[in-house]
Amino acid sequence: MKLWDKGISIDKKIEKFTVGNDRELDVFLAEYDLTASLAHAKMLGKIGILEAEEVTAIEAELKKLRQQLENGNFNIEEEFEDVHSKIEFELTKALGDTGKKIHTARSRNDQVLVAMQLYFKDNLQQISAKTKELIDVLLGLAQEHQEKLLPGYTHLQVAMPSSFGLWFSAYAELLIDDLYLMEAGLKVVDQNPLGSAAGYGSSFPIDRDYTTRELGFSALKYNVVAAQMSRGKCERTVTSNISSVANTLSRFAMDICLYMSQNFDFITFPDELTTGSSIMPHKKNPDVFELIRGKCNKLQSIANEMILITNNLPSGYHRDFQLIKENSIYSVENIKEILDIFIHSISLINVKDVNLDDEKYKYLFTVDSINDLVMQGQSFREAYKEIGGQVQNGSYQPAAGKKHTHLGSKDNLALDEIRKKKEKV
Amino acid sequence: MKLWDKGISIDKKIEKFTVGNDRELDVFLAEYDLTASLAHAKMLGKIGILEAEEVTAIEAELKKLRQQLENGNFNIEEEFEDVHSKIEFELTKALGDTGKKIHTARSRNDQVLVAMQLYFKDNLQQISAKTKELIDVLLGLAQEHQEKLLPGYTHLQVAMPSSFGLWFSAYAELLIDDLYLMEAGLKVVDQNPLGSAAGYGSSFPIDRDYTTRELGFSALKYNVVAAQMSRGKCERTVTSNISSVANTLSRFAMDICLYMSQNFDFITFPDELTTGSSIMPHKKNPDVFELIRGKCNKLQSIANEMILITNNLPSGYHRDFQLIKENSIYSVENIKEILDIFIHSISLINVKDVNLDDEKYKYLFTVDSINDLVMQGQSFREAYKEIGGQVQNGSYQPAAGKKHTHLGSKDNLALDEIRKKKEKV
Amino acid sequence: MKLWDKGISIDKKIEKFTVGNDRELDVFLAEYDLTASLAHAKMLGKIGILEAEEVTAIEAELKKLRQQLENGNFNIEEEFEDVHSKIEFELTKALGDTGKKIHTARSRNDQVLVAMQLYFKDNLQQISAKTKELIDVLLGLAQEHQEKLLPGYTHLQVAMPSSFGLWFSAYAELLIDDLYLMEAGLKVVDQNPLGSAAGYGSSFPIDRDYTTRELGFSALKYNVVAAQMSRGKCERTVTSNISSVANTLSRFAMDICLYMSQNFDFITFPDELTTGSSIMPHKKNPDVFELIRGKCNKLQSIANEMILITNNLPSGYHRDFQLIKENSIYSVENIKEILDIFIHSISLINVKDVNLDDEKYKYLFTVDSINDLVMQGQSFREAYKEIGGQVQNGSYQPAAGKKHTHLGSKDNLALDEIRKKKEKV
Amino acid sequence: MKLWDKGISIDKKIEKFTVGNDRELDVFLAEYDLTASLAHAKMLGKIGILEAEEVTAIEAELKKLRQQLENGNFNIEEEFEDVHSKIEFELTKALGDTGKKIHTARSRNDQVLVAMQLYFKDNLQQISAKTKELIDVLLGLAQEHQEKLLPGYTHLQVAMPSSFGLWFSAYAELLIDDLYLMEAGLKVVDQNPLGSAAGYGSSFPIDRDYTTRELGFSALKYNVVAAQMSRGKCERTVTSNISSVANTLSRFAMDICLYMSQNFDFITFPDELTTGSSIMPHKKNPDVFELIRGKCNKLQSIANEMILITNNLPSGYHRDFQLIKENSIYSVENIKEILDIFIHSISLINVKDVNLDDEKYKYLFTVDSINDLVMQGQSFREAYKEIGGQVQNGSYQPAAGKKHTHLGSKDNLALDEIRKKKEKV
Repeated sequence: MKLWDKGISIDKKIEKFTVGNDRELDVFLAEYDLTASLAHAKMLGKIGILEAEEVTAIEAELKKLRQQLENGNFNIEEEFEDVHSKIEFELTKALGDTGKKIHTARSRNDQVLVAMQLYFKDNLQQISAKTKELIDVLLGLAQEHQEKLLPGYTHLQVAMPSSFGLWFSAYAELLIDDLYLMEAGLKVVDQNPLGSAAGYGSSFPIDRDYTTRELGFSALKYNVVAAQMSRGKCERTVTSNISSVANTLSRFAMDICLYMSQNFDFITFPDELTTGSSIMPHKKNPDVFELIRGKCNKLQSIANEMILITNNLPSGYHRDFQLIKENSIYSVENIKEILDIFIHSISLINVKDVNLDDEKYKYLFTVDSINDLVMQGQSFREAYKEIGGQVQNGSYQPAAGKKHTHLGSKDNLALDEIRKKKEKV
Repeated sequence: MKLWDKGISIDKKIEKFTVGNDRELDVFLAEYDLTASLAHAKMLGKIGILEAEEVTAIEAELKKLRQQLENGNFNIEEEFEDVHSKIEFELTKALGDTGKKIHTARSRNDQVLVAMQLYFKDNLQQISAKTKELIDVLLGLAQEHQEKLLPGYTHLQVAMPSSFGLWFSAYAELLIDDLYLMEAGLKVVDQNPLGSAAGYGSSFPIDRDYTTRELGFSALKYNVVAAQMSRGKCERTVTSNISSVANTLSRFAMDICLYMSQNFDFITFPDELTTGSSIMPHKKNPDVFELIRGKCNKLQSIANEMILITNNLPSGYHRDFQLIKENSIYSVENIKEILDIFIHSISLINVKDVNLDDEKYKYLFTVDSINDLVMQGQSFREAYKEIGGQVQNGSYQPAAGKKHTHLGSKDNLALDEIRKKKEKV
Repeated sequence: MKLWDKGISIDKKIEKFTVGNDRELDVFLAEYDLTASLAHAKMLGKIGILEAEEVTAIEAELKKLRQQLENGNFNIEEEFEDVHSKIEFELTKALGDTGKKIHTARSRNDQVLVAMQLYFKDNLQQISAKTKELIDVLLGLAQEHQEKLLPGYTHLQVAMPSSFGLWFSAYAELLIDDLYLMEAGLKVVDQNPLGSAAGYGSSFPIDRDYTTRELGFSALKYNVVAAQMSRGKCERTVTSNISSVANTLSRFAMDICLYMSQNFDFITFPDELTTGSSIMPHKKNPDVFELIRGKCNKLQSIANEMILITNNLPSGYHRDFQLIKENSIYSVENIKEILDIFIHSISLINVKDVNLDDEKYKYLFTVDSINDLVMQGQSFREAYKEIGGQVQNGSYQPAAGKKHTHLGSKDNLALDEIRKKKEKV
Repeated sequence: MKLWDKGISIDKKIEKFTVGNDRELDVFLAEYDLTASLAHAKMLGKIGILEAEEVTAIEAELKKLRQQLENGNFNIEEEFEDVHSKIEFELTKALGDTGKKIHTARSRNDQVLVAMQLYFKDNLQQISAKTKELIDVLLGLAQEHQEKLLPGYTHLQVAMPSSFGLWFSAYAELLIDDLYLMEAGLKVVDQNPLGSAAGYGSSFPIDRDYTTRELGFSALKYNVVAAQMSRGKCERTVTSNISSVANTLSRFAMDICLYMSQNFDFITFPDELTTGSSIMPHKKNPDVFELIRGKCNKLQSIANEMILITNNLPSGYHRDFQLIKENSIYSVENIKEILDIFIHSISLINVKDVNLDDEKYKYLFTVDSINDLVMQGQSFREAYKEIGGQVQNGSYQPAAGKKHTHLGSKDNLALDEIRKKKEKV
């Protein structure tokens, strides 16, 4: 049941090879194809290719399919190679010739393009919203634990005093950067590609401004070749945006796994967030955060895959583009799940009282000691030498308890300012 | 002559290994360290750590160094490990104790952070400007050659009529997407990190709002841990932005190389843009565009390098971060050169008259033929079958010469709309 | 039904997140876990931890499970998190306490390690065999079409005469290089890791030489920490080996797609290997080879994913390793399918008669013309100038028809030598 | 002074863009071009294209250039675009017409191919030798510290007892796997490509078996198209081989950096291998190992770059290939330096006495405790429950001091077996 089938039988194995897993993936795209098909039909009505009644009939039929989708009984059966064939088949079954007309002035490539972009647009907005939610949770945790100190490390060596407040809100502020990138990604995908047909437009007098408004796109991708070439560009952009959030979460998860080690022992999580071992009965492993880390690292590899597949291909559609659908959808669905799990899990964190008087943290305060001397009038380099001498001869006494007053430091976290920055995105 | 040297001699080979090529790279950062050092000194004056005369003296000395830099006689000699040591050394040589005070309330990490971000900010603006210039050149070429037809391909097979107008302006419109990403990248790097010190702030009462204004940053990266972690994030973001423009240019260059092949023969370039062969005297090879393609592909690999180096490292500075300086600067400097060469070279293109009546292009017009039938009332699927039948039995006659009227198609290029879109970025 | 469950209920969403798609993937590993479990049981018998009857009972039970597997009625039900839990459950259900004893002196990590390595070993051998089969097909095609000339290109510009014989056998000889790498990959995976337990061995007096022989491994990975760290190394090695074959096939597929373009028109394929278009009735698109190219490019991205996930993790198992199972199995299964499709499809190629007298191929013979002069006594550089002059002033006459006699050239293909090289691997 | 220059002046900026950094890189290739040029000249003598005296004269001249190279006064001046032009220029300057004849029956592409492969062959052998040296050092350290215990971690959680002996020799055994891959890489590059000319051979009756023997290659790459396509394949293979060693060293360096943290405190290094901080006088940072880690991670990104540059390019030379020379040489030179630094530095390690009686390591021994019960007759699963119960109710008493006797475990390191495995490569 392939629309382009010219009556020539094709070996089953080859068919499986070419269809791939489009049927499973297209479940994510079905609602967007329904939306786009409706806009296209209405536009065909407006320019006189469809009669008003035909448009009404198509609209009703598409509504039924949407209902099926919402009720969970919309299936892409084996005989269809993708969701687009399936929907057109249903329209034709129900409406006869009218159904056959829906493909006028568009191509399947058009359909995939517009469905993917609507999917990306919708999901980038969801991902941004979840990211903002996580920022709020982290700012809340920062506030709650702002008095609790932590050793700060550089080179994994004990360096200077830090705090849980600093740690939580650092990731909150870094996530705002990721929002900027998603905002740009949104601009890239929020441009109507419909009307590109096979990538070179057509001789039909279609009204692309109309479908742009109808579909709620902020802009039209005017040039039809550019619209077609958005396939690839959108996938790369979106997976690269997601890669950026994933990078932030991955580093956060690494901190969490390290801080849960008995050798740090700064935090714990309730038992339902840890897992045991098949041979060691004492284990409470941070699998959830390890999987967040690993999955986020995997997500960071996907933009490279997109480039590898599409690189050095001349302009114009190539079947290779079908293959980037899978991992761009995988990226989107995974980052949403990861953000949900992260928000849930980080809220359950138990923050310990870290004893900074422990011998191993003794030198956390050397810079504070130097600074005291500087404030008393020594040059920084002199003071550095003096305290350095004390460290070497063993006479150094920690200057614990100093306040850090400047904006963004441990005792002046600027949480409101960070919150405002987030709200401006 | 390393400032942190504790008097212990270090084997030469190890030193070379650790210093790497910082000296060469830091030439790109020198002016930004001078700018940031001045802002820092003035701030120290404002909070009373430096006397007014000290600030004046430092300012004069930094001005001299800037003069040296502009005159091309600023060198980072072998005894310095980087530009930051060099500048502090010069200040101390000239001003004695006052020079030593400049390092108060900042760390070298601070200096690298702020210098890199100023460098990125300045350069992203330059890259955007060059990209806009290229867009203008392409829109000009599209206008000039809008009447000239080209075969359009899908799957590298002759598909539908296209034109030089469509081809040039497609890349122009795609480059606008790249501008959106650079705009977001600019937001990421345009946040003052100064004051983070070693990544945990300090007990000095520094005024970070002051340095933000003084340095012309649009925002402050409040959280000091976040400011430090911007190292890595900024490099990844900038190289990923550059990767996006590079992707567009690489695909364009592939088209150019293909279209110059005798088997396509759509365009030529003047001899000064082609190179010969050491054994084939007839060759005029498109080396310039092959190198654009190759270099752009290389640029697309760099964000992945940044991730590989920084991934899974817990928060806090690690020396590994030194290594991402090289290729982030390489990316910036290369894309600027590539854009210059591209603007220059594409302007010299010779567009040929492609004979679409040639037998091999005969089926370019089947969709136009179908559309004629549809406009006469047939359903699309029926018309498709009819023309398909003609193709199979050899009776098909091309419907050359049809106009495509819809917005963004070959006879309605929407060049003004694309120009406006660009201007809004 | 998780073996390490300590009675604490875990939220469903988290469970789904942690189990991932292990159940589907483990279908590929089931037979290898059965094999390894049997070897482990026999070894436990040998060192006296299991009674002889217990070993016999376990062997019988494992045989039944293998039978189920072969009959297609072995399922990993929802209540099991992976195949290893499932098999142990079945043994325990059937044999009670005896079944419980099988986990003595091994851990789940051990089981995954050994099953993965047996899977990789078996499959690398299959992939090598299929690669050799493809080499033979290509050498056959080279022989068959050795007289048929092709233009040779450099920089996509017409360069020097080539032939179908050269083209087919070039890829055959390049595939031999890929065999060398697979041979090395085989050495890496063909080392028994069993006995590593959780990565640090155990106090049981297990006999690792025995299981090495029993499982047919060529060597033992002695060090238990090294054995555990093979997880990650094996996946990277195997996917990198596969990436190498994929690279060769991808380039081949690119040639094929290009040569099928009307602008080259060197080859065609029967209709069952091409696909049509939803709007262009004349299209015969090379989708099969585009998908081979795209899938091979995708395969080339996977080793990078493996590195991104595992990089910078300290030694010892981390849950992140679970995530590299998916794409290493995906790589293996895909390359086998691709090789099958390639062997089938390339055999159906139609090779055209390319007219090298066509004007556009005129300069193919300039080097042959130069060489004639050289053989008559001119220096190469002089002869180059003379023919170059003729090309420039339009007086050049092609020296078509020259034989190339040296080993490996178009008229002396060395097919037997290449075949022998392949046989020595 | 470009040999292919047809008298047309080329803009300076374009020239810089096209020549790139070939002059610097070619310093690494000079000796190999001299070697290959001599073999080529002798072969031309053998087939009668050069007179015996001409060969003698060329040989003498090449010897002089080699002498210059060894004395450090061989320079590739600005007027040459690469080492190959330079050498041919010198021959022509000294020998007139005879010098001009050396380019007979070869192309520059040929020269680059054979020089690169000789360079790779030589260097892969050096890298293997250094890797073997490191293995020996590590086995020595394992032996020396075999009694010293370490906690073993999984998921960064305290898991089971390990030892310095296990730790050092694990990396030794893993490096053997990397040797296997280098051995395969050697087979790939150890095939004479000379005679491919521009990628399609030539009409000269060259003797490729002769140059194969003369250059010491183990095999001939017969097919001339395959020989040309080895460019790209060799670079990818070699950088991928290097990536494998780099991966092992990077993970080792991560362990080292972690173990040097005050929170682990298992090892230290003498002051000359640590560096200080510009603001924290107490710091002894593991910069050498962080740079090893970072550089090794960078090396792991390079194979991907090679693929990105060469992917989807049809067969035949493209100028893009010039760009993979840089990072393949960078990879080779860097891994040699890293191995040297690693061998030197690891030899200076100070291994501490880790107190496993510390409260935080208490549960290291639960598996040993379980195993005791199993050896007394309980099933593993029962024993697991019993010890798990003790852990939960706080009554667990560590079973420290158990010996692990099986092959490859902490008290039976199999160092001789590992050494033998290495010797067999």
